[in-house]
Amino acid sequence: MAHTRDPKRQLREICSIAARVFYDKGYDGASMQDIAGAVGLTKAGLYHHVGSKDRLLFEIMNYGMDILDETVLSKARGISEPRERLRRLIAGHIDLIVRTRNREITVILHENRSLKGPLRSKINARKLEYIRFLESTIAEVQTSASSPPAITPRLAAFALLGMINWLYQWYKLDGKVTEEELVQAYTRFFLRGFLGET
Amino acid sequence: MAHTRDPKRQLREICSIAARVFYDKGYDGASMQDIAGAVGLTKAGLYHHVGSKDRLLFEIMNYGMDILDETVLSKARGISEPRERLRRLIAGHIDLIVRTRNREITVILHENRSLKGPLRSKINARKLEYIRFLESTIAEVQTSASSPPAITPRLAAFALLGMINWLYQWYKLDGKVTEEELVQAYTRFFLRGFLGET
Repeated sequence: MAHTRDPKRQLREICSIAARVFYDKGYDGASMQDIAGAVGLTKAGLYHHVGSKDRLLFEIMNYGMDILDETVLSKARGISEPRERLRRLIAGHIDLIVRTRNREITVILHENRSLKGPLRSKINARKLEYIRFLESTIAEVQTSASSPPAITPRLAAFALLGMINWLYQWYKLDGKVTEEELVQAYTRFFLRGFLGET
Repeated sequence: MAHTRDPKRQLREICSIAARVFYDKGYDGASMQDIAGAVGLTKAGLYHHVGSKDRLLFEIMNYGMDILDETVLSKARGISEPRERLRRLIAGHIDLIVRTRNREITVILHENRSLKGPLRSKINARKLEYIRFLESTIAEVQTSASSPPAITPRLAAFALLGMINWLYQWYKLDGKVTEEELVQAYTRFFLRGFLGET
């Protein structure tokens, strides 16, 4: 691990590397020794930094939600026009999923079962905040539409999250469909599906 | 484990129980000893039945694809009218995901990384067959539509799979939205999104 005096940056560096180890070996399959080795710390040193394996998983997920906040939410919040805000949310979230540099997010999406009690509740509260923002944006888009929606803003928000979060299972950045084409297609599909506009 | 003379049924019983153990502990976190204990076999007995841990994971996934074939695909194949076939596919697949008795499927959806080489290829070939059937059904639906589609049948198929496969993350059968309402909403949303019909 590179030496640094900034504790937050150091924690994020540990999180990035640990997320890759969890991704490769699974949360239960990866030992703290494996992670210490990958990070370049002794096991005692790793425990000093992160407290426990549970806590480390929590820190990774929390970092993943920070990335979502910083790269998607914070930019979207500044956009007052609802459709434009929704477009930005869709494009930003897709970018987060399809770029492999953010493996932490993949871990978040899959290992939520491994987190227990209050740590789990904290992550779920952050996820819920995101879903509510998405839902209220979708509801705002609806008020400017000419036809009644096909489904409720809440169901639409979850459908959209599914469409996007599932991308890591099949979408390849170097494949036939460019990210730009994907964003446009998904946005068009979603707006049509929700509002029935052609 | 209940005694039975039918090897296929016996293997399925082992798969059901083992899937639950993998689901709880993760593939890497669950030992063959854990699984043998849950199934009610000795470890040697379990190895005799399934060969290896890899092979066991493969058998679970294969059983999951059998369930998909038997409960969704086989029924849809008999329907000649494309929209009706698509409706049946959506309803059948949703039912598979939201009913917890089929935990194997959840494992399939998440542990694909853990399977290697030819076993992985075999499962992926079965998944691809399903995606192609979905895609060709969507393409058939399109030919009877009045407007050009918002996205290609392939992207639409993956979007639909994401919407449905993500349900296990948030949808609760005993929640506010009934399964019937969910199926109708998703079908309407998808057909609108894809065809632009209101």
